[in-house]
Amino acid sequence: MKAYVYVSPKKSVLDPQGKTIHGALRKMGYQGVSDVRQGKYFEVTLDGLDEAQARQEVERMAREVLTNPVIEEFRYSLETP
Amino acid sequence: MKAYVYVSPKKSVLDPQGKTIHGALRKMGYQGVSDVRQGKYFEVTLDGLDEAQARQEVERMAREVLTNPVIEEFRYSLETP
Repeated sequence: MKAYVYVSPKKSVLDPQGKTIHGALRKMGYQGVSDVRQGKYFEVTLDGLDEAQARQEVERMAREVLTNPVIEEFRYSLETP
Repeated sequence: MKAYVYVSPKKSVLDPQGKTIHGALRKMGYQGVSDVRQGKYFEVTLDGLDEAQARQEVERMAREVLTNPVIEEFRYSLETP
């Protein structure tokens, strides 16, 4: 089973990386881009867990390890085979 | 309109960051994790483009700026209002 975890900076937190990319895109002539935010993305392969256990593990992992809860938030999706 | 771009290392490319996270998770007692791969995630806000134009801009942007085509691949989704 695969879990996809998406970690992004909270709305209220400044995202200098995203701002830099946004500036670069504008200078390169990309039209219509009004904001860019950058986050992280994890592909976690899980073995030997049923869906409920997998959800529990992934949520705990995302909360405790993959995300800094002060400045980041996460969402995830499970791909069941 | 929002575009979500996911950039991940190609299957054939070593992902040392992912391996490190995997090792850390195992040491911390997380069960059932057999692989971790880390990628990047971009939230791009687009204004004044219709869906076809947005797709074109986002694909070009992902190919030319957000992804290193030698070692990375991307996928994206559009959130139409």
